[in-house]
Amino acid sequence: MEGEPTLRLRVFDLNCWAIRYLSKRQQERVRLIGDTLRREGFDLVLLQEVWSEQDYSDLRVKLAGCYPFSHYFRSGVIGSGLCVFSRFPILDTLLYQYSLNGYPYMLQHGDWFCGKSVGLVIIKISGIIFNVYVTHLHAEYCREKDAYLPHRLVQAWELAQFIRHTSKAADVVLLGGDLNMHPEDVGIRLLRGWTGLRDAFAEATRFEGCKNGCTLVPENCFTDKSELLPFPLGIRIDYILYKAISSFTVKCEELKTTTGPALGTDIPFSDHEAVMATLHIQRQGQPAGATLGTADLVLADVVTEARTEVGVGLRAAQRQRYSSGRMAVLALLLLLLQAAAALGTLAGLGAEQPFPKLSFCLLAFLALGVLVLAAGLHLFHTMEVKMLHGTEDQMWMALRALQERP
Amino acid sequence: MEGEPTLRLRVFDLNCWAIRYLSKRQQERVRLIGDTLRREGFDLVLLQEVWSEQDYSDLRVKLAGCYPFSHYFRSGVIGSGLCVFSRFPILDTLLYQYSLNGYPYMLQHGDWFCGKSVGLVIIKISGIIFNVYVTHLHAEYCREKDAYLPHRLVQAWELAQFIRHTSKAADVVLLGGDLNMHPEDVGIRLLRGWTGLRDAFAEATRFEGCKNGCTLVPENCFTDKSELLPFPLGIRIDYILYKAISSFTVKCEELKTTTGPALGTDIPFSDHEAVMATLHIQRQGQPAGATLGTADLVLADVVTEARTEVGVGLRAAQRQRYSSGRMAVLALLLLLLQAAAALGTLAGLGAEQPFPKLSFCLLAFLALGVLVLAAGLHLFHTMEVKMLHGTEDQMWMALRALQERP
Repeated sequence: MEGEPTLRLRVFDLNCWAIRYLSKRQQERVRLIGDTLRREGFDLVLLQEVWSEQDYSDLRVKLAGCYPFSHYFRSGVIGSGLCVFSRFPILDTLLYQYSLNGYPYMLQHGDWFCGKSVGLVIIKISGIIFNVYVTHLHAEYCREKDAYLPHRLVQAWELAQFIRHTSKAADVVLLGGDLNMHPEDVGIRLLRGWTGLRDAFAEATRFEGCKNGCTLVPENCFTDKSELLPFPLGIRIDYILYKAISSFTVKCEELKTTTGPALGTDIPFSDHEAVMATLHIQRQGQPAGATLGTADLVLADVVTEARTEVGVGLRAAQRQRYSSGRMAVLALLLLLLQAAAALGTLAGLGAEQPFPKLSFCLLAFLALGVLVLAAGLHLFHTMEVKMLHGTEDQMWMALRALQERP
Repeated sequence: MEGEPTLRLRVFDLNCWAIRYLSKRQQERVRLIGDTLRREGFDLVLLQEVWSEQDYSDLRVKLAGCYPFSHYFRSGVIGSGLCVFSRFPILDTLLYQYSLNGYPYMLQHGDWFCGKSVGLVIIKISGIIFNVYVTHLHAEYCREKDAYLPHRLVQAWELAQFIRHTSKAADVVLLGGDLNMHPEDVGIRLLRGWTGLRDAFAEATRFEGCKNGCTLVPENCFTDKSELLPFPLGIRIDYILYKAISSFTVKCEELKTTTGPALGTDIPFSDHEAVMATLHIQRQGQPAGATLGTADLVLADVVTEARTEVGVGLRAAQRQRYSSGRMAVLALLLLLLQAAAALGTLAGLGAEQPFPKLSFCLLAFLALGVLVLAAGLHLFHTMEVKMLHGTEDQMWMALRALQERP
């Protein structure tokens, strides 16, 4: 391709919903995804929710012919679920695990156990350095009362900071993934504003697929219809974003989403629709992404809005830290009282009454259990406070930098 | 300074050992450090083990005149302990928390609770972009049988990767901190080889201070003499490392360490000696740090050695994951047995014998406690396995890249 004026890159992005033994028809769908990827021959494939390393290995074997290079990002208890398949050599990789990612005790949500992260792979095509990021942010379980908003904002901020700091030598930046945010949400505006990334859907010359580019649609047989009731058309939470950094321009020629059942089958790939972009990269004068300075005022507003939400999360975390600490102290006091009572009995006080051994033991174990649990929670919320506070600080520094710009 | 051919930068690095209520004469020493920093007027101050944010705030107030810019990195339960004071504006910051950092149940060591990290601050002086990194790696508690070596190697690797990926647009890279590794340890060789960083002590034109540049010396009244018995001269574990990336050269004109009691007092700053470097930065043809390619073979050996150690850690973690999992299963079986016994009693079986309520309850609580603990450990060691495995993979990829270089 060397010497050609334009490079054409076909990118595939999908949240695979591949939870072994839990996701519906998981094995069949992973096979289907593999078959399609092999047939279609994209240049770059960014997958999320490939939770099982076995599934990744199976895909790697199947795709070895057309995507000889691949990387799986390991993190957390379950794994990040992130992987990349590429037609071009992967030169280097880096994983950044988000500092906040829900709560370990929210077992029914389970995000904490995945160690949500952003993975970076560096690829060189025809002498052009691509920094390709793949990520999956914390899910939104209840839009009206979204307890995870501060955590997701911290993740969006860390994602933006990570991209900014690691992409300085890149020619082109690509980000694909399930961001779990609607296009107008503050997190998306923050990410796009702070990095200068462009939305392939908004920029695409041609579009084909679900209305408004939605990737979670009621028509998909695997989606939870009740969750999508307020959004009859569906929602768009899976993105391909891009920008050129040095003397290149990137244009999105075409964006597609899948629309329900895959070719020749009765099931879709996943509960999410896949996003497929065809990008044109051309060497040219001014970088396309260098519009950051022009919208400083808008960006300052976005950072302020995000910082307010992080502040709300910070105060909630401080309250939880306080209550768990108080609970631990109360449990400790109860244990001390019990110890005093036991010592008193041993010393012969109140010997006229029988000592209630069973209830005493039950109470002691209960107090001990509460103490351990509350102390653990206190530690966890202390970490949460630290990270929210740190992010608030960083955002404040960003605001100051924005305001000081000429 | 604009237009001057040479920039002179004075850097101060110290592990402050400032644990409130635990470190000896902590308040007095923090005051002393503040006074000295104000008097000496360095350009850049990199501190570790400033555990209390109050101490940082006090220092910030005291140093506001001569170091108007500063940053404290928050992480973990206690905090990273890392902070930076600078005469020049801090343009941006980023924190990377190491994925492995000891064990939460090793309370006597406590490293896990600090959320050990590397902090990056970006500073621009006379148009030269400095990426300044400050870090503190996991301590070495027993050199003969160092259970934390794999974790420290993962940290050294992540530190090297973080520096490589974030410093591509920098002119000069500076790293200061307590690396808890001797100069010839594999972790230091890995870090230096993989980043191209140079050791200020080895490169310094003039040196003044403790013999061999040691920073943990038996003469210091706060050091644990028994730990230093095998090293009568002391050990060197605090470093200032640097390299030029673009068309600059960096030279270390002078390196100093403190030697015991600070000027006009009877106590040293800390149990570590401070490291002070005077660097000369000059715009010039070839970057000084670009010697990476020349030593590829040596570097491949170092990466192989480090990978072997990480592999040893991986197998240990897999064994621990297995034993904790087995323990959890046994505890669960015991609980199920007890439940069956209780149900049997309720159903009237064995009613001729009195039911031993107290021992039954004690045993149930014990089993429950073991189950919770073992399950927690199993989760923790699963994460450990994931991260060690991920690092092994990354190192393998690095080796392949080194071998494929022409």
